Amino acid sequence: MRAPIVTARLADLATPCLLLDRAKLARNIEIMAAAVRRHGVALRPHMKTAKSAAVARLATAGQAGGIAVSTLAEAEYFAREGFRDILYAVGIVPAKLDRAAALRRAGVNLILVTDDPATAETISGHARATGAEHRVLVEVDCGEHRGGVEPESDAVLAVGRALGPLCAGVMTHAGHSYNCRSIAEVEDVAEAERQAAVTAAERLRGIGLATPIVSVGSTPTALHARRLADVTETRPGVYMFQDLFQVQIGSGALGNMAVTVLASVIHRRPAENRVVIDAGGMALSKDRSTASAPRDYGFGLVLDARGRQSLGDAIVERANQEHGVVTAPTPLPFDRLEVGALVRVAPNHVCMTAAAYDRYHIVDGEDDAVSDVWHRVNGW
Amino acid sequence: MRAPIVTARLADLATPCLLLDRAKLARNIEIMAAAVRRHGVALRPHMKTAKSAAVARLATAGQAGGIAVSTLAEAEYFAREGFRDILYAVGIVPAKLDRAAALRRAGVNLILVTDDPATAETISGHARATGAEHRVLVEVDCGEHRGGVEPESDAVLAVGRALGPLCAGVMTHAGHSYNCRSIAEVEDVAEAERQAAVTAAERLRGIGLATPIVSVGSTPTALHARRLADVTETRPGVYMFQDLFQVQIGSGALGNMAVTVLASVIHRRPAENRVVIDAGGMALSKDRSTASAPRDYGFGLVLDARGRQSLGDAIVERANQEHGVVTAPTPLPFDRLEVGALVRVAPNHVCMTAAAYDRYHIVDGEDDAVSDVWHRVNGW
Repeated sequence: MRAPIVTARLADLATPCLLLDRAKLARNIEIMAAAVRRHGVALRPHMKTAKSAAVARLATAGQAGGIAVSTLAEAEYFAREGFRDILYAVGIVPAKLDRAAALRRAGVNLILVTDDPATAETISGHARATGAEHRVLVEVDCGEHRGGVEPESDAVLAVGRALGPLCAGVMTHAGHSYNCRSIAEVEDVAEAERQAAVTAAERLRGIGLATPIVSVGSTPTALHARRLADVTETRPGVYMFQDLFQVQIGSGALGNMAVTVLASVIHRRPAENRVVIDAGGMALSKDRSTASAPRDYGFGLVLDARGRQSLGDAIVERANQEHGVVTAPTPLPFDRLEVGALVRVAPNHVCMTAAAYDRYHIVDGEDDAVSDVWHRVNGW
Repeated sequence: MRAPIVTARLADLATPCLLLDRAKLARNIEIMAAAVRRHGVALRPHMKTAKSAAVARLATAGQAGGIAVSTLAEAEYFAREGFRDILYAVGIVPAKLDRAAALRRAGVNLILVTDDPATAETISGHARATGAEHRVLVEVDCGEHRGGVEPESDAVLAVGRALGPLCAGVMTHAGHSYNCRSIAEVEDVAEAERQAAVTAAERLRGIGLATPIVSVGSTPTALHARRLADVTETRPGVYMFQDLFQVQIGSGALGNMAVTVLASVIHRRPAENRVVIDAGGMALSKDRSTASAPRDYGFGLVLDARGRQSLGDAIVERANQEHGVVTAPTPLPFDRLEVGALVRVAPNHVCMTAAAYDRYHIVDGEDDAVSDVWHRVNGW
């Protein structure tokens, strides 16, 4: 690893901006790698959170090399960055098949997903018409009831038949693991996720289709699955960064949150025990996922400039477009909160927060130096 | 006005993407211009919503030419686009003064705001040290209790004295007008906004300071103010586009919403009367402002591809990262909602939704043609 080159101090950055703690990122990646290693399945990191090639290289080190993405813009970006095994894990629509075929022609094994027999027919027709050797997973519902066919349904077989030789296996996602409030609940959801995928795969094999990929995963279920027998890979994503919501559902610890927003105090209201920072809804997102968690952090937990929880339990209580109103149950240290003072905000839901930024400023623990800048891709 | 050049059809666009209806935009701009004209004050459109030079040129046509912005990135973008009178309407911090001075050197009359005596001293020192002839408004609180000093307080005079010859007047913002639920309430808030600004300006004049600018405004108060005597300008922003929240607080009509998100159906769940679209939290934002409005539209109202409300009262009930779950109180027309079918989503809070995109695709009413692409600026 090359020695870090100091490019700036925190005070040189224009606020609001995104900080990424390299050591915490590395630790989170190792924790998940170890959790998945127990099961002998592949870890296919979902890059929907980080959207960064530098992060993807760390997350795939020692792994099979595949990644998952949530947009075609991500797929195209990671392809440019040299990634060759990419699962686009959101249901494909016919209008996007030409972009998918272009990636395949560029040498990327881009794997698509669908749960719709008519779309599966269209993909097969597109493959015949263009010569694109699409590879497609049948999306299975394991209880979230968002996308996917029921594993025991005729629809699984209908989608598989329509894909025929393009069928590459099955995919499911236990997004409802985010509703769990205990590890035991997560373990049960993980087992239901596994069973749904394995059941659907076996039924497809029963009609003669190849299913080399049996893909499951979310951060909670990948961490806590009791067993992943007959599964081939898992696709967690937010584990790399962690956030206040994941901490509360048992997927991480407060001290492991790798991404924070650096902000400046812009108003002081001592009589109301408030300050206002220049990180509002645009900088933090309007995600309120901790509203339904055991502890409500408003729009984020406010830390000091070094990332320490030295401001009591200060949170961003209100978020207007460019204004975040910070309150705390105990007196705020106004002597350290002059206009222009720097603070950091740990986000509720880091996937949403990070999307407001095109880069990460890399920091190391409580050090004041910014050692690198890593770019990220947004949009579609 | 040049004839529109058809660059695409809706079906050629990659979803999700942002559509802007040119005729509705023009109508909204005219409605606000007429409302402000009654008072004989300047309309300084706040570009925090649109963040687009093409929109700003329409909104400033026939006006004094000034605009307001919410970030220095906006100020720099509009300066490059030729705008020369720009109010940066968020409290300045010392670290941002060098960028402000650079804009001033580039010939932009960039007006800053502060409510902090120490920051006012720092600005004066920066002006002396660098030769930057900063112009600064004293930010006044008119009841929102976010930023600003009380109009009757000693602090108004302290900030003014610290600014001395840099003082250019006062600014206030009745953000709490968004909490009003009747026009009469908005009228009262508008009058309180006016009085706060005028009171502070008179007190500053009393100590010999010039206050050529007395700036107020939000979309509700600019539309509904009974009088704006002694005010010099108003700064509404979201009126250009309208959204579901503004409609509910009496600032617009459903049919005037100019911005929608074009999305594709990616899953069909007829048994549950649901479809899933490829516009989730990233594409719509997680803003839930209509949750506290008379009518809760979830994450947005779902229209057909031409922008007509022909899908009943379909809304995006749930928004995951790239998935929006659409439900309706009456049966959805599944024959028109195949996978790949296009719909539009009218947003709760268009400032937040638009921030996910770097461009607008310009459409005209129910026409299928996309006649232009207008860029927007994001970030800080």
